[in-house]
Formats: sequence, structure tokens, C-alpha cells
Amino acid sequence: MTIDDILSNESVRQAEFPVSRDTIFMAHGGVCILPQRSVKAMQDYLEICATRGQENLEIWRHLNETRVVAAKLIGAQASEIALLGPTSLGLSLVANGLPWQAGDEIVCYHDDYPANVYPWMDLQRRGVVLKFLEPDVPGHITPEVVERALTPKTRMVALASCHFFTGYRIDVDAIGKLVRGRGIYFCLDAIQTVGAFPTSVEHVDFLSADAHKWMLGPMAAGIFYVRESLHEVLRPTLIGAWNVKSPNFIAQDQVEFEKGGRRYEPGVPNAIGIYGMRAALDLLVEVGIENVAARLLKLKAHLVPRLEALGFQVLPPTNGENASSITTATRDGGAPLEQVFDHLAKHQVTISLRHNRAGRAHLRFSPHFYNTEAEVDRVCALIGEVK
Amino acid sequence: MTIDDILSNESVRQAEFPVSRDTIFMAHGGVCILPQRSVKAMQDYLEICATRGQENLEIWRHLNETRVVAAKLIGAQASEIALLGPTSLGLSLVANGLPWQAGDEIVCYHDDYPANVYPWMDLQRRGVVLKFLEPDVPGHITPEVVERALTPKTRMVALASCHFFTGYRIDVDAIGKLVRGRGIYFCLDAIQTVGAFPTSVEHVDFLSADAHKWMLGPMAAGIFYVRESLHEVLRPTLIGAWNVKSPNFIAQDQVEFEKGGRRYEPGVPNAIGIYGMRAALDLLVEVGIENVAARLLKLKAHLVPRLEALGFQVLPPTNGENASSITTATRDGGAPLEQVFDHLAKHQVTISLRHNRAGRAHLRFSPHFYNTEAEVDRVCALIGEVK
Repeated sequence: MTIDDILSNESVRQAEFPVSRDTIFMAHGGVCILPQRSVKAMQDYLEICATRGQENLEIWRHLNETRVVAAKLIGAQASEIALLGPTSLGLSLVANGLPWQAGDEIVCYHDDYPANVYPWMDLQRRGVVLKFLEPDVPGHITPEVVERALTPKTRMVALASCHFFTGYRIDVDAIGKLVRGRGIYFCLDAIQTVGAFPTSVEHVDFLSADAHKWMLGPMAAGIFYVRESLHEVLRPTLIGAWNVKSPNFIAQDQVEFEKGGRRYEPGVPNAIGIYGMRAALDLLVEVGIENVAARLLKLKAHLVPRLEALGFQVLPPTNGENASSITTATRDGGAPLEQVFDHLAKHQVTISLRHNRAGRAHLRFSPHFYNTEAEVDRVCALIGEVK
Repeated sequence: MTIDDILSNESVRQAEFPVSRDTIFMAHGGVCILPQRSVKAMQDYLEICATRGQENLEIWRHLNETRVVAAKLIGAQASEIALLGPTSLGLSLVANGLPWQAGDEIVCYHDDYPANVYPWMDLQRRGVVLKFLEPDVPGHITPEVVERALTPKTRMVALASCHFFTGYRIDVDAIGKLVRGRGIYFCLDAIQTVGAFPTSVEHVDFLSADAHKWMLGPMAAGIFYVRESLHEVLRPTLIGAWNVKSPNFIAQDQVEFEKGGRRYEPGVPNAIGIYGMRAALDLLVEVGIENVAARLLKLKAHLVPRLEALGFQVLPPTNGENASSITTATRDGGAPLEQVFDHLAKHQVTISLRHNRAGRAHLRFSPHFYNTEAEVDRVCALIGEVK
């Protein structure tokens, strides 16, 4: 199946994405809907859970296959993938498992999504020093902005692959090269790009991303990547019978971790969620992440001028290699955006209402590849109705 | 619905527990099957995920209601419940979040399930000293056995409510009173009793239990209880935007945790799994945990003499207040138990094959309340066929 197969036939689109039947859903940057394939994979597994049990040989094989699919998606090896969500859990594992020393500096961004700020902030209790990035434009974390913040004491740079509010997509490769070239760890909160834009770990040490945004999977199933050469450096801090060697379920005299990403998974997996994530990833791989990315920028190019025509200022970047499918806009005058948001909701349009640090309301649109230009037009027409 | 409604009508039993149609499932001490109600609750929620989104007002209400149900089941307050699994995650939060000092002693049991040994063992790296219990009979952790291990340096006692191998059920109240009376924390891995036997936190400080055994729920959904007076003592070590105050998704200057059990939940919940757990708990509450407990001991009384008649030695306790629905047995002579296990599996009987530290094979039977005496008879007849 191709994106065009889905977009060119409304019945196919509605079969793959049942939400499309009566809702315009453009909030994938928040918590996504689930495609039918994901739902069906979970419902089928649930039938097995009722008739043969949750645990069976297939689920272990399925888990390993999912590691392979997830690894391929981000350019990792399967042995580098832990199947863990939510994103904050993976980020907390990084915060808790590295051998920090007092005075070590972490570079991050105060206006990032809080899940990628607080785990580092809490390390201040252990003497770690936070250096907040100071981009010239909010959210625009360029390699130059990162470079300005580095010092000889920088131990890690922790960034989001795409800023949740402005939609600015960082140059992961360039920043990763810069950072790792200086012997500094690079940790990526990739939830806002994996599934939407190619996201490679070639120059990344740690990556965490739950499935519930662009991967089109359920909440609390996710991907946690740790570069294999760091498996002995990042000590697992969630510990159980699954990630520590326990032959015959017998506790040994030493804590000896299993090999591979599994060492970060303490106990039983969220098998249901992983079935759902896997089916969604298969769909994304089938249509092609490069094609998804191109589609999202095309939809953005359709949306931005229409919002501007309605008097909105759209936050940059509105196009180019740093643009994403998060389009955030505000305006001076006109009806309050809360009222616009409510009007859209009343007409079965789901977008996000977000506020910046100054408390100013913004509308955030985050369509996925199956959304259509006609839906964008309809949304803009509805906005035009609010006087 | 009562247990008798289910047991007295095979079509009702098979409707509520589809596994019963063609399988005899007696491995609830491992990973349980799911009852139809649990499957249906999740399948229904999945339909909503496809058509309206995973996140909607109902799920937050549902989460809070589930806290209430879970709290009632263990005699806690809803504000003391975090909806987290697996069990090892909760236990690791306890290990990582308490202010240990070098020399502090933790009392635990080396032959416990490894998930309740390794998190404490790993604290040796921080100077914590482990004191392993030495019961006279394997698994029989009496108050006297615990008392013998206490010293002025004991900071915590960490026990399983029921031993996964022998099925010995500890006196949680007596041990809790003893331990807490001396100002020592009492941490309970309760996965082998919650849902099967009344399990109260009246004298317990921390409790963790995933839903995938006696609660009849899915893997990686669970209950993590922390006594409210200890919320400021047990610092959350998984940190995200959900458990740290983040008005308008804006990171503040300080890490200030949310109130209640939610403070231990870093990010998005495993909503699907929680729907499944909740439906299963509702069923258990409906039939009554006291009734479930009585039923399980009745089934055990049916099973034990039949195993003995087949030449098995059944591990104590075989009855009384320390007995559970885990019945573990071995025998001298006769066919190897691996062969018995395979024969049962071939005839659609699911039990567990477990080995003790000496490597000796045992059969472990762990029926739940919906299993029948006729199923026990059938299993024993099948065992008798193996020469």
C-alpha cells in the first residue's frame, strides 16, 4: 500500500483510519488516534490471551521481530532496542544510570517539553549543572546554538528531535557529530519525529520515543535505544527477573544483566501495546518514512498560507529542512483562540490548544500523512466562521 | 454474578473464561489467561482509540476510578495508588527512591522470585547490607523467622506475600505489625496474592503487584502502593511531565511533584492495560475476594490428595492459613516430570514446570476460582497415563 492508495480512495482511507469517517484529527503531536491495523493486531492478540494465554512462544518471537523493525526505523541494531515506554521512562533511565560526577554539565532547553527537562533538572541534586540553551528564536536549536553552550565540563547534550511547540526540527546528524566529536553524550527525545521524519541514531547515544504520537501506536509502548558500546556504561536502574540472569527463576549471587536492549526491561513487557506499535510501524514502513515526510511538508505548505490568510502569524519554520508537521499559530485580534478551538471541537475537528511561557494561546495543528488537503480547507473554513 | 453462577453453568463459565472451552489452564501463578470481560473492555476502548482518539475525558476519569477500585481491594486510599507495572518497576522505585545510608540493612529472602531479590541486591553498591532470611522449611517465612533477622540496623523488610515456588502465604498483618512496630519499612511484592486472597496494606508501607497473575489482567498493568505518609520520603525516580507540575506543558524552575500516587507515574499511562485490569478487578470484586480465597483452598484440598495418590510429594503447606492456590509437587521415580509436563501440554493442559535451586524438577499447579474439580480430576488422570 502507498500513501497515494490511501489518499486517492476515501473508502480505503476510512478503512485504514476509521477516525476519518466523521472526525478531522490533527493532533498527532499530542496523543494520536490508532489506525485500524494497530487496533486489529491488538484485538487479535487479545483473543489469544482469552483462549490460550497471554504468554506463548509467539509473543517472544514477536517481541524480537519488533526490535528488528524498530531498529531499522532509526538505523540501529536490534540488540540496541529496549521496548519501553513512555518516553520519560527511557529518559529517566539515562538520567539515573550514568555515572555523573559533581560539576558535570548537561546542556538542554528549558522550553522543551517538560519530560525532557525535569529528569536532568533533578540531577542538580547530585551536583550536575544544567546549561540551558539560548536560541535566538524560540525552539530553533541549531548546531551553532548548541556549540555556544558547550564547555569542557559538558557531559551530555539532551535535545528533542523536534520542538513540541514551534515544530522546529533539529539537525540531529549535525548536532550529533558536533557533540559526540567532543566526547559528549547525545541523548534524543525523538517522540516528535520517529514515524514522521527519518530519524537516525548514527550520531546519537540514547533515544527514547513512545509510540503514541507519530508512530501511530498506543500510549506506554515505545522504543528506548542505547548505543551498544554504552551498555556497560549506562547501568540499568529498573531491575527485575527479566533483565538480570535468573536461570530457572532462581536468584543468583550477583546482579548480571542480560545482553542487548533487554537489559533495560525489568519485567514482563506491555505485550498488547507492543503488538499495536508493531502493526503501526509496519504500516509506516510500508508507505515509507521518506514519503511520509514529504507528504507532511506538502500538507504544511497547504495549511500555512491559509492560516496566514485568516490573520494568523505562523511560528517559524514554515518550510524547509527544519519544518515539521507541527504548525503553531496565533493572531492579534479576532475571536479568542479558545473560542476557535471550541468551535472546531464542536464540528469534530481535533487540534491542540497550547500556551507559550507568556501565557499566550496558540493553535497547534499536527496532521499525519493520511490527512487531506480537503480536511485542511474544511478546518480553515470553520475557523473563518468564528467572528 | 457469583462464583457458583460460573461454576454451575458450563456455558456461563466458558463465556466468562473462554480458555475453558478447550483448555485446562492452571498456570495463574505464571502469566494468566484473560477473562472475557477484560478482553472486551480493552477491545471496546480500542474502538474508541481508532475513532475518537486514545486520549479523551473518559480515560482520565477511568484512571481515577481504577485507583479507587485498586485501593479498596488492598485497603488503601485511592491517593496512595500509582497505576504502574510490572511488579519489578514498583520494587525498583522503592529501591531507588529511599534515602539509604551505608550500613542500612534490608531483610529479604534469597530464594524469593528474583524480581524481589535483585533490586535489593543492587543496593549493595550503595553500601546497603542484605540479610537473607533462613526459614527452617523453604519458603516458610513466619514472623519468628523474620524477627530473628532483625537488627538495630534493619531499615526495610522486603517480602513476597506468597512464595512463588512453594506457595507459602505469609502472615502479612503479623509481620507488618512486627516490622513497622520497630520503625522498619515493610515492602510487599504482592503479585502472588492480590486477586486471590485478601491482602491488606494496613501494616504495609510499599506494595507492588502487576495484574498478570491472580488479578486476571494484562502484563505491564499493575498496582503500586505507597503509604501516603511516605510520599515525601520515597522520592520518585522516574520523572516526566505527568508527575511533575507542568502547567500548560511548561517546565518550571523546580521539580515539584504532583500529589498522590500519580507522583510515581512519569508519563502517559498504559491506558489499554489499565482498562483490562480494571474489568478483571471488577469481576473479582463482584464475586468477592473472600469467596475466591475459600474456593482456591477448596480446589487445593481436592488436588493435593490426588497428587499424593499418584506418588507425588506435595510441598507444604497443603492446607491452612498459609496455603495458597500454588501447589507444587515432585516425586521419586516414575516418568521424568518433563515428560509429564509435555503430556499435559499435548492434551491442552497448561501448568508450570519449575526447578528448585538444586535443579530438581517440580510441577506447579495454580488454578483460579473458575477452575473445576472435574478439571483437577482430568489433569490427574492424564498424569496417571504417563508411565
